[in-house]
Amino acid sequence: MVNAGAMSGSGNLMDFLDEPFPDVGTYEDFHTIDWLREKSRDTDRHRKITSKSKESIWEFIKSLLDAWSGWVVMLLIGLLAGTLAGVIDLAVDWMTDLKEGVCLSAFWYSHEQCCWTSNETTFEDRDKCPLWQKWSELLVNQSEGASAYILNYLMYILWALLFAFLAVSLVRVFAPYACGSGIPEIKTILSGFIIRGYLGKWTLLIKTVTLVLVVSSGLSLGKEGPLVHVACCCGNFFSSLFSKYSKNEGKRREVLSAAAAAGVSVAFGAPIGGVLFSLEEVSYYFPLKTLWRSFFAALVAAFTLRSINPFGNSRLVLFYVEYHTPWYMAELFPFILLGVFGGLWGTLFIRCNIAWCRRRKTTRLGKYPVLEVIVVTAITAIIAYPNPYTRRSTSELISELFNDCGALESSQLCDYINDPNMTRPVDDIPDRPAGVGVYTAMWQLALALVFKIVITIFTFGMKIPSGLFIPSMAVGAMAGRMVGIGVEQLAYHHHDWIVFRNWCRPGADCVTPGLYAMVGAAACLGGVTRMTVSLVVIMFELTGGLEYIVPLMAAAVTSKWVADAFGKEGIYEAHIHLNGYPFLDVKDEFTHRTLATDVMRPRRGEPPLSVLTQDSMTVEDVETLIKETDYNGFPVVVSRDSERLIGFAQRRELILAIKNARQRQEGIVSNSILYFTEEPPELPANSPHPLKLRRVLNLSPFTVTDHTPMETVVDIFRKLGLRQCLVTRSGRLLGIITKKDVLRHMAQMANQDPESIMFN
Amino acid sequence: MVNAGAMSGSGNLMDFLDEPFPDVGTYEDFHTIDWLREKSRDTDRHRKITSKSKESIWEFIKSLLDAWSGWVVMLLIGLLAGTLAGVIDLAVDWMTDLKEGVCLSAFWYSHEQCCWTSNETTFEDRDKCPLWQKWSELLVNQSEGASAYILNYLMYILWALLFAFLAVSLVRVFAPYACGSGIPEIKTILSGFIIRGYLGKWTLLIKTVTLVLVVSSGLSLGKEGPLVHVACCCGNFFSSLFSKYSKNEGKRREVLSAAAAAGVSVAFGAPIGGVLFSLEEVSYYFPLKTLWRSFFAALVAAFTLRSINPFGNSRLVLFYVEYHTPWYMAELFPFILLGVFGGLWGTLFIRCNIAWCRRRKTTRLGKYPVLEVIVVTAITAIIAYPNPYTRRSTSELISELFNDCGALESSQLCDYINDPNMTRPVDDIPDRPAGVGVYTAMWQLALALVFKIVITIFTFGMKIPSGLFIPSMAVGAMAGRMVGIGVEQLAYHHHDWIVFRNWCRPGADCVTPGLYAMVGAAACLGGVTRMTVSLVVIMFELTGGLEYIVPLMAAAVTSKWVADAFGKEGIYEAHIHLNGYPFLDVKDEFTHRTLATDVMRPRRGEPPLSVLTQDSMTVEDVETLIKETDYNGFPVVVSRDSERLIGFAQRRELILAIKNARQRQEGIVSNSILYFTEEPPELPANSPHPLKLRRVLNLSPFTVTDHTPMETVVDIFRKLGLRQCLVTRSGRLLGIITKKDVLRHMAQMANQDPESIMFN
Repeated sequence: MVNAGAMSGSGNLMDFLDEPFPDVGTYEDFHTIDWLREKSRDTDRHRKITSKSKESIWEFIKSLLDAWSGWVVMLLIGLLAGTLAGVIDLAVDWMTDLKEGVCLSAFWYSHEQCCWTSNETTFEDRDKCPLWQKWSELLVNQSEGASAYILNYLMYILWALLFAFLAVSLVRVFAPYACGSGIPEIKTILSGFIIRGYLGKWTLLIKTVTLVLVVSSGLSLGKEGPLVHVACCCGNFFSSLFSKYSKNEGKRREVLSAAAAAGVSVAFGAPIGGVLFSLEEVSYYFPLKTLWRSFFAALVAAFTLRSINPFGNSRLVLFYVEYHTPWYMAELFPFILLGVFGGLWGTLFIRCNIAWCRRRKTTRLGKYPVLEVIVVTAITAIIAYPNPYTRRSTSELISELFNDCGALESSQLCDYINDPNMTRPVDDIPDRPAGVGVYTAMWQLALALVFKIVITIFTFGMKIPSGLFIPSMAVGAMAGRMVGIGVEQLAYHHHDWIVFRNWCRPGADCVTPGLYAMVGAAACLGGVTRMTVSLVVIMFELTGGLEYIVPLMAAAVTSKWVADAFGKEGIYEAHIHLNGYPFLDVKDEFTHRTLATDVMRPRRGEPPLSVLTQDSMTVEDVETLIKETDYNGFPVVVSRDSERLIGFAQRRELILAIKNARQRQEGIVSNSILYFTEEPPELPANSPHPLKLRRVLNLSPFTVTDHTPMETVVDIFRKLGLRQCLVTRSGRLLGIITKKDVLRHMAQMANQDPESIMFN
Repeated sequence: MVNAGAMSGSGNLMDFLDEPFPDVGTYEDFHTIDWLREKSRDTDRHRKITSKSKESIWEFIKSLLDAWSGWVVMLLIGLLAGTLAGVIDLAVDWMTDLKEGVCLSAFWYSHEQCCWTSNETTFEDRDKCPLWQKWSELLVNQSEGASAYILNYLMYILWALLFAFLAVSLVRVFAPYACGSGIPEIKTILSGFIIRGYLGKWTLLIKTVTLVLVVSSGLSLGKEGPLVHVACCCGNFFSSLFSKYSKNEGKRREVLSAAAAAGVSVAFGAPIGGVLFSLEEVSYYFPLKTLWRSFFAALVAAFTLRSINPFGNSRLVLFYVEYHTPWYMAELFPFILLGVFGGLWGTLFIRCNIAWCRRRKTTRLGKYPVLEVIVVTAITAIIAYPNPYTRRSTSELISELFNDCGALESSQLCDYINDPNMTRPVDDIPDRPAGVGVYTAMWQLALALVFKIVITIFTFGMKIPSGLFIPSMAVGAMAGRMVGIGVEQLAYHHHDWIVFRNWCRPGADCVTPGLYAMVGAAACLGGVTRMTVSLVVIMFELTGGLEYIVPLMAAAVTSKWVADAFGKEGIYEAHIHLNGYPFLDVKDEFTHRTLATDVMRPRRGEPPLSVLTQDSMTVEDVETLIKETDYNGFPVVVSRDSERLIGFAQRRELILAIKNARQRQEGIVSNSILYFTEEPPELPANSPHPLKLRRVLNLSPFTVTDHTPMETVVDIFRKLGLRQCLVTRSGRLLGIITKKDVLRHMAQMANQDPESIMFN
């Protein structure tokens, strides 16, 4: 037994007495990090600071600052993410309206702001004011008629094309990582993968700008997913300012998890939903400390956004709704039907979108991203303009669909035939027969629904920032509103039916079509992303009432079950697999009966494992081994005969250490003996100076026996975040299992192509 | 390399071809479970069902039922927990009122129900109705005067003593585990400890009944914590109906986690808060599947409770409040002060309560639990009755303190001097000077606060069911309301002060004392339990508005920081340590620089590790070893010389297997050779028949090297839920680390008594 004090220094990866050479502890691009190692590096750092803090007051203050830096980073992330979200909202508002016209008093006003500042408008005419001019009015001084319509139509298409072209060019030239929703990549990064530049400053800038452009261009996409990416870029930026986070990939990921929560928080105005989204959907390693910090960041972000007040109503949330009637048990049936629809839509969307994306990757289609964006934008604009429900921005559409028809509502969807003798208060409107407007709206909605379904499949995955939340919710809200109106009219015309008799008497306001729209939106979003709890919480925060949790939950769970029956993968996992990222999903259950010995390398018939011996290889031997193989590390054994494992050396650190020694240490030549033991081996008298490499040796490599079930191995890889694990039998080294091996084995067992896992 | 198909059968703990003997896979009382093993047993079961399901339609249906049983269990738990909570609420209502009087029309009516059914009462007189008679009216026909007061006082004390005596006797005689809040034990059980009977049917029954008794007796305790215990008992009961859960301790704990969520959900009417409470505070292993199921159970429970409608207002939540004024930045200062108060209260409470409980454990005090309860009840009743704020039930008190003073409010706390010219609508009341009632209320509240603080310290931990949430919230609400009234009056009298000038003009309703009460309640609850996110979410669900999240969060976080500065442990962890349970907290960070070699047994100077050899020990040798030691298991090595590890055998299973073999297998005698290899060893011709024990051998024991930092070892124990871990160096077995060793080492490093960890 060795003395603990003397041992502890070498217990970890490096000898802390030696000065570590540069670049130790960093990872190569497109490689997986070692969570355990990051964690123990952070503990070492923490220990150093704690012991130093007793030395002087200055060090004590420094240690306090270090302890508080986590909260400071959260505050900064919240402030920046909230500000960016506010700016994006304002810019999108203005640019969306720019497609239709311009404000004469100040061109940077949106339609609503323009008419607010104008004093001549009354409440009823708030949409029409002389200062706001459509393009036809401005250019040819006509506001009605066919030519004005065509001119406006053309201007609409032109602006859309201009915005889309700008966006795709900016992305291509400056930041190729700014495209897509970013959530699949963020999930992968959070699980411990390195993609350099994905969360960089350029990506942040370009994604923010192009997000405004693409949303304004009227394409069928949302800004919610990309906002998560933007928030994570903020998180990465601020964590680079503090060495605690910038130098430790594990700690950095804790910050990113919290940033993702802040992103959703500002996207929907739902801080609790944001935290749960980060927990349920995005994060991999989510300790309780991160839970608290995420919550803090999400709150700060939400309140920053509220102070900017982009929606002009001092409401925090994107779609604020308030319903006045409760729901009834019998309504659960249509809600569950909407859940089924959501599940089917999710399956359809994922299958078609993945097929199309695969085609884009494998055929010549992928070579013309700009052209693709232009064509899709043109088609979208041409088809969208004639239909009032697709012409306006998707979030406005959802907002209208969610709304209850009050007495003041002027929307076409609320064109009911009123009872002329009505004397009830405004909030309590009895059920009424639908008017012409509602029927017109119904078929327009039906057309819009088909169009949205088709165009979204082609839009998501193009080389522009594109989120899925809003289009999915729009599909669901349209379907839901139609079902809601259907049920409402059925109840009105058939009060005597048994299903309606108990709860829907004549003159009572019993069905709220807006609630159906909300349930449908939740179902469709659930079908695509497979979120449940966070989805319901987001929806619950949107309405602010506990009353509707059961309908939402029923729809979300049904939708998840239906969609899961056709395939377990949500859209984000599907895109992760499409891109071949090494993502070990915590949700997948591995239930096969294979053993570690079936997965480890070398396989039967393959050359033996490349190992280092503890004190008999020369510098040249090792250099040759490194050159000839591309393994990320090598086990170190006592000798080739006994094969008893003593540790593991990382390729990157071996290379750095040898390079360093050759440059700085005297007497190190190609046939110097490398040794990993405490004491140098006994060498013949005239042999060159040996090189001690104990400090790059990990003395506590992870081992399992060859009989360990793969299920346990998968669990260990998941929970401890390993990169590799050595396989032994009765103390002898047999082989090695890397994360890539595990993922390939899992793919093979699920009858997928193991070669689709590309990175390690 | 061995053929995978042939290997897989023996890969795990048992040979699936042999019929497992009874009791394999169960654990002894007060022992820790092995999570990895439970998990792999469940996968095996799942695999069996899946492969069988292809055989016939009946098997397919059975496999579907099995897959759905999780949701069924959740539904049942939700229904039962909701029903029990409703029944408890109704019974408590009735019995609390019974201390004051009785309903003449039907003695089982509570005061409120009695006066509802009576037609003679108007809205103003709802508290007084002829059918409800105080004891003095009933017995001596006097309702006023000193003698009536004294008679009512005596009856109050007598009823309280009767209830308390019944409760403590029931607990002592039938279910000793029914005492306390149960949350520390549930945390320990969920972390993988076995306490038989703790969640049994008797505990469920007795805890439900005695909970009603003690809450009605007026003791300073709440029903929220015990409701979590009750819900977990329901969870345990229903999981025993399904073999999937009853036979697997790991799966059973998933159900219990969800049940805990359902418990909080019905305690506060906060389903999301319940799920987060389970996640943040109680659970240990909380996969996403459990998250969804917890949410489902929490929702079902909340809606069952709502259908029972115990509060008579069809509100789901315990304290429904609605405020009409926003809060202002300047108010953050008193909110943070309340946070500091909460933190100090938490520290004071934990220290004093633990000191008192330790005294109870170690001195003769603990021998008279019935007497203790009687004395505390008598003191509580005698002091509580004269003060109107302690006489009523604590939840009513909190409810009143939370409430905003509307125009109709008749409470003494709302006795403001109204402006006679007031013509404003009801909801918008300007700030007013306090009347006499408010000043009376202030000193009564101050007295009540001191009394609550002192008596709660002595109450929590007695041998009766007792929750902490309500008393803590009451302390905070009283302090908060007093601060709130103070700030309000300060603002009224000093509108010109700089801090008030901007937001509190004369005639504006700017300070809401009820909000201060709520913030204070959150702060005090946070100080005692150290919850943050779940606490804020529960509070947020109580009010239903996002507006007050920032004040609540500010108070909760301040309170946690202040309390953490004095000691990291919350009340539940403190009680776990007091009881010596083996609980490895995920929140504790282990940052010491020790290595596995410092912790493992045998230590230097101790006799060598007790091991089994793979094929050279006799039955008698092993039996002697088992008899002489009390280890839970023994490593199996190739031979004593090489010390190369091949597996690990559990004590319990060795005993069972040998006993079984001696009874059933022929030729097994005391000097039969035991072997753990595939093939029997070569033996002399006339030696007795050897005994194969490979099926009790765990071929994949967990190993770490002696150089592994303890920090990593702690992490592995936590994340994988191990019972023990073997320590090797260069493939040789050196020692063993058990969970108890880890916990003792952690206690030692934190300068605590390592012997306080009592169980393994």
